Amino acid sequence: MSKLKTAIIGPTGYTGLELIRILSRHPGAEVSVLLSRRPGRPVISDIFPSLVGVCELKCELIDDEKCLEGVDVAFVALPHTVAMAYVPRLLERGLRVVDMSADYRLPDPAVYEKWYGMEHADKARLDEAVYGLPEFMRERIREAKLVANPGCYPTAALLALAPLAEADMLDPGMPVIVDAKSGATGAGRTPTLVNYFPERNENVEPYGVGDHRHMPEMEQVLTDVTGKETTVLFQPHLVPMDRGMLCTIYAAPTGGVTREQLTDVLEKAYADAPFVRVRTDVLPATKYVSGTNFCDLAAHVAKGKVILFSALDNMIKGASGQAIQNMNIMFGFDETAGLY
Amino acid sequence: MSKLKTAIIGPTGYTGLELIRILSRHPGAEVSVLLSRRPGRPVISDIFPSLVGVCELKCELIDDEKCLEGVDVAFVALPHTVAMAYVPRLLERGLRVVDMSADYRLPDPAVYEKWYGMEHADKARLDEAVYGLPEFMRERIREAKLVANPGCYPTAALLALAPLAEADMLDPGMPVIVDAKSGATGAGRTPTLVNYFPERNENVEPYGVGDHRHMPEMEQVLTDVTGKETTVLFQPHLVPMDRGMLCTIYAAPTGGVTREQLTDVLEKAYADAPFVRVRTDVLPATKYVSGTNFCDLAAHVAKGKVILFSALDNMIKGASGQAIQNMNIMFGFDETAGLY
Amino acid sequence: MSKLKTAIIGPTGYTGLELIRILSRHPGAEVSVLLSRRPGRPVISDIFPSLVGVCELKCELIDDEKCLEGVDVAFVALPHTVAMAYVPRLLERGLRVVDMSADYRLPDPAVYEKWYGMEHADKARLDEAVYGLPEFMRERIREAKLVANPGCYPTAALLALAPLAEADMLDPGMPVIVDAKSGATGAGRTPTLVNYFPERNENVEPYGVGDHRHMPEMEQVLTDVTGKETTVLFQPHLVPMDRGMLCTIYAAPTGGVTREQLTDVLEKAYADAPFVRVRTDVLPATKYVSGTNFCDLAAHVAKGKVILFSALDNMIKGASGQAIQNMNIMFGFDETAGLY
Amino acid sequence: MSKLKTAIIGPTGYTGLELIRILSRHPGAEVSVLLSRRPGRPVISDIFPSLVGVCELKCELIDDEKCLEGVDVAFVALPHTVAMAYVPRLLERGLRVVDMSADYRLPDPAVYEKWYGMEHADKARLDEAVYGLPEFMRERIREAKLVANPGCYPTAALLALAPLAEADMLDPGMPVIVDAKSGATGAGRTPTLVNYFPERNENVEPYGVGDHRHMPEMEQVLTDVTGKETTVLFQPHLVPMDRGMLCTIYAAPTGGVTREQLTDVLEKAYADAPFVRVRTDVLPATKYVSGTNFCDLAAHVAKGKVILFSALDNMIKGASGQAIQNMNIMFGFDETAGLY
Repeated sequence: MSKLKTAIIGPTGYTGLELIRILSRHPGAEVSVLLSRRPGRPVISDIFPSLVGVCELKCELIDDEKCLEGVDVAFVALPHTVAMAYVPRLLERGLRVVDMSADYRLPDPAVYEKWYGMEHADKARLDEAVYGLPEFMRERIREAKLVANPGCYPTAALLALAPLAEADMLDPGMPVIVDAKSGATGAGRTPTLVNYFPERNENVEPYGVGDHRHMPEMEQVLTDVTGKETTVLFQPHLVPMDRGMLCTIYAAPTGGVTREQLTDVLEKAYADAPFVRVRTDVLPATKYVSGTNFCDLAAHVAKGKVILFSALDNMIKGASGQAIQNMNIMFGFDETAGLY
Repeated sequence: MSKLKTAIIGPTGYTGLELIRILSRHPGAEVSVLLSRRPGRPVISDIFPSLVGVCELKCELIDDEKCLEGVDVAFVALPHTVAMAYVPRLLERGLRVVDMSADYRLPDPAVYEKWYGMEHADKARLDEAVYGLPEFMRERIREAKLVANPGCYPTAALLALAPLAEADMLDPGMPVIVDAKSGATGAGRTPTLVNYFPERNENVEPYGVGDHRHMPEMEQVLTDVTGKETTVLFQPHLVPMDRGMLCTIYAAPTGGVTREQLTDVLEKAYADAPFVRVRTDVLPATKYVSGTNFCDLAAHVAKGKVILFSALDNMIKGASGQAIQNMNIMFGFDETAGLY
Repeated sequence: MSKLKTAIIGPTGYTGLELIRILSRHPGAEVSVLLSRRPGRPVISDIFPSLVGVCELKCELIDDEKCLEGVDVAFVALPHTVAMAYVPRLLERGLRVVDMSADYRLPDPAVYEKWYGMEHADKARLDEAVYGLPEFMRERIREAKLVANPGCYPTAALLALAPLAEADMLDPGMPVIVDAKSGATGAGRTPTLVNYFPERNENVEPYGVGDHRHMPEMEQVLTDVTGKETTVLFQPHLVPMDRGMLCTIYAAPTGGVTREQLTDVLEKAYADAPFVRVRTDVLPATKYVSGTNFCDLAAHVAKGKVILFSALDNMIKGASGQAIQNMNIMFGFDETAGLY
Repeated sequence: MSKLKTAIIGPTGYTGLELIRILSRHPGAEVSVLLSRRPGRPVISDIFPSLVGVCELKCELIDDEKCLEGVDVAFVALPHTVAMAYVPRLLERGLRVVDMSADYRLPDPAVYEKWYGMEHADKARLDEAVYGLPEFMRERIREAKLVANPGCYPTAALLALAPLAEADMLDPGMPVIVDAKSGATGAGRTPTLVNYFPERNENVEPYGVGDHRHMPEMEQVLTDVTGKETTVLFQPHLVPMDRGMLCTIYAAPTGGVTREQLTDVLEKAYADAPFVRVRTDVLPATKYVSGTNFCDLAAHVAKGKVILFSALDNMIKGASGQAIQNMNIMFGFDETAGLY
């Protein structure tokens, strides 16, 4: 049987690398086309020397859309604000699209404009785009033409919070605090001083106080999924590791609640979710999920507060693995294909 | 002029190593005696090969108290519950003592018993011991016979919180959340699986949910310093680095408050503190304080919450540097002697 | 079609974990039985929390051999000297065996005794065991009952050296120098001070000067493969990383030789080897092979010496990946099955 | 007594930071002037936030030489080829100079031109410059107007090799192999992909095969010090750590030689050197010298070869610490002042 043909638009970053790695062992799909804004048609394995023998396609110029002939689905790994100019061209050619950027994640264009500093260029499609968190949107993803792949921080936070919010266990009058610790790959592959090895190593550092763009994403999706307004105070930190993300979440319960009750709600919510593990044996840690599409969750109660832990690999469940999970659902593969 | 003679009781852990390193460049004090529970009178530089040429004293047996003849001050780096059996002997010999353990930090013996699992063996001295946080206790430290050197997490948290609590800027009805990220040296030098390199590297991990012993220490000292009951929800995490600690603190303000007002209170509180830097230029990060006795603080406001950041080197301002800062105060040295 | 049934004897170390991970995505084989010396029949995912949802078999007691009913192949991940007492029992039951220990790697029992400090307990089988370096032993592995899976350092060194030695390009009168740098997982999973995070992090350190057991393994196999006596001076170092290994090899050429000639010999030797990449685009680095079964090689000439670089993932091509590559060959799978 | 006034020319890199840190605790010297090519007169603590409270001087423009009024000594931390255009101006103003660049390290201008790709701009001073390796040049440094501070790799290699070469224990007909492993700070502070955290972490990587500029530096100084031609094959590697350097050196002895004989020569050579430690207790490791001006050495014999290990902190004994050691000698301070 011939394999599903996929294209990666913007393959030269870490999410592109990870998409290629995962698709190279997918039983039913393959990377057929790479399109890039880089001139000179570089071979992808010249950019990522690890890919020699795995994928040696050329990165064609992004405007050479004729290369897309016969392609079924495109992963768009372009920067925010660039993606929304390109996605329409793909959809118009009949491809289904998983957009890894933030451009189609926020249903409200005013919120987009406020946080991304420019008017949305494709407002009409905001309604049509499906937020690609399979654990909550599986049915809509199945039919979607355009999936907005969630941010890494929102994936971690929402998987922990949404079932409890839905079950009315969190006091909507109190902001939920999401204290996140992330590896450096989350910042992309352009060298910067902040993630230069001698600056990042042996260094834990907060950033984006009160103004990280994943904060409104968490709030909008929580509201969307649960029908309730939720305020999120999101504080990310960089820690000295390549990959992995841990969110520690502090929330006020609506009433007296036990760890068992919280755990029970999470376990029921994810009974059929192959990639969410509700842990009572150990506390979630990034090592346990590194290199996998799992998100590990745990719920605790202390000093009258709910404490939730959520760990995932920011490059996999937080980006490329989830994108392929979405593709699997869109095209009728087993949800876990290529992901174990 | 002859130098102050110091002894280190329990010098074979990381705090011992750091005490020796700092004292080796102190202009007015020197390490004269090492006493250890290890048999065989090992030379300290056989335990820490970095010390060859710096300090090559033998570790005498801890019961060889005659070695303490002529010693002015002892740093006790023994484990919790062991220290309180030994400290009285030192005091009775006329030495002044800086105890690095938790044994004399909690004024209330019932709290000690609850958190350390045994009755306090030296209750009479709990009142006499001075909590060695120089920024708040400088005058009492000057005269103290026995200084209880604070824990690393409490030092970081209290330096951020105490001035704001004192100024009635924090709502005492709401628990303060202290989310801490610590390097692995904080766990001591006995090899464990949790801090074995292949387990700790590339791994962020929470521990001690609701039951870390530094939580009551923070609460008691906050109450002590400010005269108000404060509840603290403390959640520590291990991150893959040797040393350094960052506390991110979330608190409810009593009323509308601005970043400028918070910063102003902190700056006034630490106007004369040589080791506390209130940062408005950058966010505190462990790299900026690594290898120093500084504690960097910053205050922010987001979503109606106060967010405080506090960074220090857990081995220096969080342990051995602070112990020497206390010694400096006790013996009339410049507070910064040996510490820049 | 039913899958090949595999057993892992001694699954609680890092090689066991890696075998389970790889086999969990193998298209034609599965882990059926775990046997361990640990009492209490622990579930493997209690030992490795990352395995929840991937493999939750119990570790049966190692003497419960009846569990091996129906099993086709066993991977023995027991310590050196323990393995040789157990392997015969497996072979007698009719299983084929891939032994990860050193016990069957050295054909000469006198050499074994000298380096491992005890008489070999199963000398009769030393001849029958096949050294499991597929790139040189593929045909013999196909038929082997017992494969001695190579050490990580020998794999890296031999893949670089053997083709050049065979081609008479290395002066046999001069010792070959192998300077190796290895991640900490190579030392196993028992916590030690030398690999305790605060000791290993920020620390490069040599060990085993002149007495590492992989030195005679390299020499014997080089002699075996090439028919010439070769002396190897092997010097390993620990570097602060989880996994990965780089060997930098210095050798005297027999005569004038160019980089191109060396590269040409390597390329021809590995034309059909799916996991050896001869690099001329970049220098081998551990990052390029991390998480893969690849070994990257490069040859250079400087100051009249041959310099070879060889990089692999010590847990995969250096241990468990190679074991499964051997299994693939033994049972007629595609050599790369489960390994891309 | 007033302190010696020092200037740092080019203070915004890691060597500048380290000079400032060390001088801030020097008993007899202080940083008086910073001159930089950066426009806008930035405060140094805005570039290095760790320096708030330690040094908050402005970086004056490099051409504002009037700032140098009253300055006794300048540390030049400018890039290679830039330094030689500036050093003459300092000398002509009567300052003594420690040049951290390579510009005055190679006595032969033809060698400079070959390796640095341009004609030397200040040939006349090459003879007058003293190579600042105090252990071999102490007397000449005392009187020097211009000290060429050695490279980090040559310092490590020469301290191990020179005494043995002088004692005719190394066969001059065989190249000495120097296999070096270095932390990332050695590459300077400009962000690059090669030292971007996600590329450097978990990655050991060789570079500069046969063409590193420290190779001729080692050869020329060895010849200079010993009066014999020595060939060096130098192969550096990057390892995932901030700082520290280990050289493993392989050499052919002139005849039968024992470890004890080698050690004896080293111990005699460094009997009066406060910063060289000849180790027989442990193998040199970067952790033991991190943050110090020590260089740890050890000599071994295996397979008829001499193996030497040399470890130092590349930012201290390999750069700024050695520069201050040179300053101490030039100005009559105790050689260790500020460096313990």
